[in-house]
Amino acid sequence: MFNFASVNAEIKYKDRDDLAIVYSEKPFFVKAVFTKNKFRAAPVNFCIDRLKKNKKFNAIIVNSGNANACTGKQGYLDCELIERKLKEEFQIENGILIASTGVIGVRLPLEKICKKISILKKNLSSENYEDFAKAIMTTDTVPKIVEYKNGKFRIFGIAKGAGMIHPNMATMLAFIFTNANIELKKIDKAFKDVIDRTFNSISVDGDTSTNDSVFLSILPEEDVEFNEFINGLRYVCENLAKKIVEDGEGSTKFIEINVINGNNKEKCKQIAETIAKSPLVKTAFFGNDPNWGRIICAIGYSNVDFNPENIILTIGQHKVFENGMESPEFSEEKVYEYLKNNRNVSLTVNLNEGKASWKYYTCDFSYEYVKINAEYRT
Amino acid sequence: MFNFASVNAEIKYKDRDDLAIVYSEKPFFVKAVFTKNKFRAAPVNFCIDRLKKNKKFNAIIVNSGNANACTGKQGYLDCELIERKLKEEFQIENGILIASTGVIGVRLPLEKICKKISILKKNLSSENYEDFAKAIMTTDTVPKIVEYKNGKFRIFGIAKGAGMIHPNMATMLAFIFTNANIELKKIDKAFKDVIDRTFNSISVDGDTSTNDSVFLSILPEEDVEFNEFINGLRYVCENLAKKIVEDGEGSTKFIEINVINGNNKEKCKQIAETIAKSPLVKTAFFGNDPNWGRIICAIGYSNVDFNPENIILTIGQHKVFENGMESPEFSEEKVYEYLKNNRNVSLTVNLNEGKASWKYYTCDFSYEYVKINAEYRT
Repeated sequence: MFNFASVNAEIKYKDRDDLAIVYSEKPFFVKAVFTKNKFRAAPVNFCIDRLKKNKKFNAIIVNSGNANACTGKQGYLDCELIERKLKEEFQIENGILIASTGVIGVRLPLEKICKKISILKKNLSSENYEDFAKAIMTTDTVPKIVEYKNGKFRIFGIAKGAGMIHPNMATMLAFIFTNANIELKKIDKAFKDVIDRTFNSISVDGDTSTNDSVFLSILPEEDVEFNEFINGLRYVCENLAKKIVEDGEGSTKFIEINVINGNNKEKCKQIAETIAKSPLVKTAFFGNDPNWGRIICAIGYSNVDFNPENIILTIGQHKVFENGMESPEFSEEKVYEYLKNNRNVSLTVNLNEGKASWKYYTCDFSYEYVKINAEYRT
Repeated sequence: MFNFASVNAEIKYKDRDDLAIVYSEKPFFVKAVFTKNKFRAAPVNFCIDRLKKNKKFNAIIVNSGNANACTGKQGYLDCELIERKLKEEFQIENGILIASTGVIGVRLPLEKICKKISILKKNLSSENYEDFAKAIMTTDTVPKIVEYKNGKFRIFGIAKGAGMIHPNMATMLAFIFTNANIELKKIDKAFKDVIDRTFNSISVDGDTSTNDSVFLSILPEEDVEFNEFINGLRYVCENLAKKIVEDGEGSTKFIEINVINGNNKEKCKQIAETIAKSPLVKTAFFGNDPNWGRIICAIGYSNVDFNPENIILTIGQHKVFENGMESPEFSEEKVYEYLKNNRNVSLTVNLNEGKASWKYYTCDFSYEYVKINAEYRT
């Protein structure tokens, strides 16, 4: 059973918990995917090493308020010190993992963290998952929890993230837990595919942090069909990913981008991603501007090959572009009304050349985004 | 001799000129570089065809207020109609070229344009280059003109652009004129290299428009050393490019990004470009936030290979990051003061691995940028 606990360690915050743990007496397996940023944070390097060394794990400890990124060799040594302290206190024989999120370039306050580990132990309960979800938040405005259940089989996920965010607040972190009894070798590829379609298909500001990590923890107890497991995993990851975009800094719109009927999925993803990152598209959505020219322009510079004449662009249910020009059906007023009256909006790019597709989630760019990110850190 | 003229054709604006021409009785050679956007505007396709067909040209006609982009086959036919009218009126035997900038997806008002061509002819003068520079502006706040002179040899450039900008206002256009007598074949590669180091190394919002074009017009009269010619060309292009960034929509900072001592220039450019486009870096500069973590993070996700331990990051003259962590010399207060007190700021990424380098210009992201681009088009 996975047990959770959190505590205030005053890492950065005085009035809320900022240190959390998930612990299981029975050791669990972990699959993980990490940031591709070259400046990987110390805890990411630590986890990569431990996942090679250990087969099973008893705990993952997480702090907010400090990313332990760009902290040199000392940052890694600090992870090892926390590991040692945690193993002693919890009498852990298997591996432990560490995740951090917060300010870049500042050493972890080791003493404050180590002092609170015994309290974490006392607070452990399978019911405390919401405390865990709250303790790992930084600029998030809500905790992010998603569950999938079928009989006794369960997949349960907790995430944090709202952009690569607030002055030096990095990181998207996700922790997924399951009791599925699944052949571990089969998981790797499927897990990466699910991540690619979910956490890697969202954009708030296009910045990939130094700490991004997704951990899948497995305590094999319930037999389940592999397809059922993957469906559940996709459900949890997709809904956590959507919650991150919905909580995007300063956002007023949740935008679903569908690129369909391409001849390969990489191309579809590339086009979707280019639209999702375009500041001009994102500011147009903020202004409820039915400005299809900007979307078409972003498709055009997405650096993939397609026939511009084939493209059909739809905003919501409204066809706006076809045959290389504005659709005769286009009504500026109707699209404006659609954008104005909906927080969740969608657009579809039909490439009309094949069967592949990709879905991407993004949010708009608002004054508030600039405000949040331009405020001089204190 | 290059002669210029402009006129108000009410294409979009009532109270300023929006149609301009450059004409030379003696035909001139043209080298040109166009947008890589797949949705190339009709005038871009027209120019590509004419540059294959014609060896020499007598005129380039330019309008603002309408991009003639995403206008289907009719957009191209409209270019041919303007060409025919212009050739008749001016009795031109060689080629003519057309450039447009403005709203995407709306047909050109052909009649209005054709009606004014005779007035353009009457207004022609070598002195009217500033009228030309003003008539091609869209959201630009100033006309952009740069000259290089050495004895009788002259290179003279006019550009417009301030981002891919205002609701549906696309385009960076640049027109460069010279009397240099240069072997034309030698120009191609050198011209592309200069463009790559100048107009292709600036970013306001990272959006590449459907109409971007640079025309180099040559009336070979003065013998000049090839190196002298290239130096002059680089001077003109670099300074026009800087003027575009300085006029970036809503910008309050002009940021020079230097990536030095890399082992190849492509890598240096890639890193510089990633920093230049990061919304988090751009909002930090707007807030005078000495937030080196965001710059390091952007370097880290720029998708090239380097050793993070080797990187030295400098903001202005202030070393902020080295040996994989914050520099001991870093003073938050000093860097804040530097950013606060200067409109033109710089940062340098030293890769410490080779001899290649790249320079990139960008501007910050302000409330005003969001305002300009989120306003519903009227």
